[in-house]
Amino acid sequence: MIIDIPENSDFSIHNIPFGIFSTKDRSPRAGVAVGDHILDLVAVAELDVFDFNVAVLGREDLNDFISLGKEITSRVRKKIQYWLKDDTSPLAGKPELFVKQSEAQMHMPVCVGDYTDFYSSIEHATNVGKMFRDPENALLPNWKHIPVGYHGRASSIVVSGQPIHRPKGQTLPKDANTPVFGPSQRLDFELEMGFVVGKNTDLGESVSTKEAEDYIFGLVLFNDWSARDIQKWEYVPLGPFLGKNFASSISPWIVTLDALEPFRVSGPEQEPKVLPYLVYEGEKNYEINLEVGITPDGGDETTVCHSNFKYMYWNMAQQLAHHTVNGCNIHVGDMMASGTISGKDENSYGSMLELAWMGTKPVQLNDGSERKFINDGDTVTLRGYAQKEAIRVGFGAVSTKVLPAK
Amino acid sequence: MIIDIPENSDFSIHNIPFGIFSTKDRSPRAGVAVGDHILDLVAVAELDVFDFNVAVLGREDLNDFISLGKEITSRVRKKIQYWLKDDTSPLAGKPELFVKQSEAQMHMPVCVGDYTDFYSSIEHATNVGKMFRDPENALLPNWKHIPVGYHGRASSIVVSGQPIHRPKGQTLPKDANTPVFGPSQRLDFELEMGFVVGKNTDLGESVSTKEAEDYIFGLVLFNDWSARDIQKWEYVPLGPFLGKNFASSISPWIVTLDALEPFRVSGPEQEPKVLPYLVYEGEKNYEINLEVGITPDGGDETTVCHSNFKYMYWNMAQQLAHHTVNGCNIHVGDMMASGTISGKDENSYGSMLELAWMGTKPVQLNDGSERKFINDGDTVTLRGYAQKEAIRVGFGAVSTKVLPAK
Repeated sequence: MIIDIPENSDFSIHNIPFGIFSTKDRSPRAGVAVGDHILDLVAVAELDVFDFNVAVLGREDLNDFISLGKEITSRVRKKIQYWLKDDTSPLAGKPELFVKQSEAQMHMPVCVGDYTDFYSSIEHATNVGKMFRDPENALLPNWKHIPVGYHGRASSIVVSGQPIHRPKGQTLPKDANTPVFGPSQRLDFELEMGFVVGKNTDLGESVSTKEAEDYIFGLVLFNDWSARDIQKWEYVPLGPFLGKNFASSISPWIVTLDALEPFRVSGPEQEPKVLPYLVYEGEKNYEINLEVGITPDGGDETTVCHSNFKYMYWNMAQQLAHHTVNGCNIHVGDMMASGTISGKDENSYGSMLELAWMGTKPVQLNDGSERKFINDGDTVTLRGYAQKEAIRVGFGAVSTKVLPAK
Repeated sequence: MIIDIPENSDFSIHNIPFGIFSTKDRSPRAGVAVGDHILDLVAVAELDVFDFNVAVLGREDLNDFISLGKEITSRVRKKIQYWLKDDTSPLAGKPELFVKQSEAQMHMPVCVGDYTDFYSSIEHATNVGKMFRDPENALLPNWKHIPVGYHGRASSIVVSGQPIHRPKGQTLPKDANTPVFGPSQRLDFELEMGFVVGKNTDLGESVSTKEAEDYIFGLVLFNDWSARDIQKWEYVPLGPFLGKNFASSISPWIVTLDALEPFRVSGPEQEPKVLPYLVYEGEKNYEINLEVGITPDGGDETTVCHSNFKYMYWNMAQQLAHHTVNGCNIHVGDMMASGTISGKDENSYGSMLELAWMGTKPVQLNDGSERKFINDGDTVTLRGYAQKEAIRVGFGAVSTKVLPAK
């Protein structure tokens, strides 16, 4: 190995995720996370070892790199893996190719054209249905037939490390008839994963569940910030809007679908049977451990949730087939998030709304304080990794501090 | 006048709208509609008459031109007006600066980052509420407090002239418990106007109703295609998705807010009073005549709707103030549509859903056929113009043929 990779690193030799970084001396550019370092792909390209238009590596996002297609990007990933292991490779003995992650700033890895959020965890949809509708009929009639989703705001997706302000907005106080305006009192995270579209379609074209993986470049952790009180008042009949679009936060490294290959698992049985265009073959879920921590200002982190991406009822292939079955076109860089990923256990719920059950069961933090929702000054961190025997492929983290309303 | 402008042209000397066109010999570029012609702004720039970076005029969209800011773009519009009227201007005697509209192809005028659709006509919201919910309580409790809106799909916005395919999707047949899959049986238009954002904000920043017009570059006609049967089955609880995102069609010329100045009118009284951040001063509605025609394949057009942009309950300044009050950031090129613009009269309803009242009152066409919704082969055309005495400022049309499902 030409660079030291700490044991249990998320960014093992099996991973090779892509991102955009900069340092004091290096303008934003493509890189690969390796252990605690970043391999500078612009610097690698200067060694004349790539056989594609390397200008795409110097762009401020990965869209043009991803647009080269998986035939090229998968080969680049494999080459890097090989070179890192080979002490005689062109990368050997060239420390200037590497940057310490601690000395780099990460940027949005892609320019997101359109962002879609699904609602694909049956446990989450059931919990929300129990709380807000009917405990006996928690799931709406369409839920098991459709991977329900809606369009979100692309402009306000930000990368890990960028703090956000508590949003202000209209809410309807309990027992009131008219709304009031002010900072949200129920700021929440949502533990999600998002996939990055890796291939364009034309308007009118559909992607089958069988083809879907060709159109998925990779995944990131996705925190779909939600202001529950704003959302509750505004969302009927056209869905979430200002309760969501003030910010969503993602992890900076796109872990490729190639890297997640060893972690495929079967999804839950779908009953009733889905319509033919949603039928799929093979293992389309992925076993990825997920957790959420809350760190009060100046305090220590408390892990408040342990979940897993494998819990998803609807998989990414079904989401993409559904999204395009009407001919809706997709573009490289589009992001599609899973919806909150909750499991069956109470400590696996992927939002404060569920963990504290609408404020009725406050969550205890290590410092003795408790939370019904997220406080100003809190930092919320989502982490994720897949592990199978000695193979570990992780996502790092998306970590976001909440500042008071402006 | 250095070029002939037919009387009653939408593109009078008072208009000067911006768009992107190409011809056999000219690559996509910025132009201005003047009567039946287009003034080629790249060709004008070659005369060295502009004092800004003219490279922006040769781009495939107007985003960079608009980003110059209104101080520059408004001056460009005024200069062009002046030059067109002046027989000794630098544009005089240079027929090569002009292209016939009939010989040009129009393109999307902007690259749309995010697209938002509002629901701001009280007549439309009331009609829909009567049909689908409770005739006695047609408006939901939030409607008069919030300019209700949702995020739509930016990628599938297409320009006038581009045909669309009837979408396929899941629908729930009457009295059935399980959905079926197939072409939508209830394809509809929605008569809307959309505004183009002309100035960026940062995440966390808000735009007041007073500042809002600085952030609006101009307007287009907007047909928010809707598959009512798909929409009905999917939209609870997260809003419209595949019932809308297969296509939206816009007119190619962006009519600037400057050009619409003479057509300001007062909006309807808003009762109950709105929250302070939605209060506005002055006349923020615009009197713009709107109509919709249906042309069966090979047949003649029947006008099925006469409406007016002045009917809007919520104006654009309120929409923008609401959209950003939580800190949601906006970008140049973002598009925000009004929602279906219906008036009080039955012939002013802006969708087939309302005109044919859920299929109970079929609309008669001139050829003797009738329509509950839109048929394959039909061309739907939206037109709009403002007129005050001799001053006419029009939008041209957005005209779209519906092809059978793929």
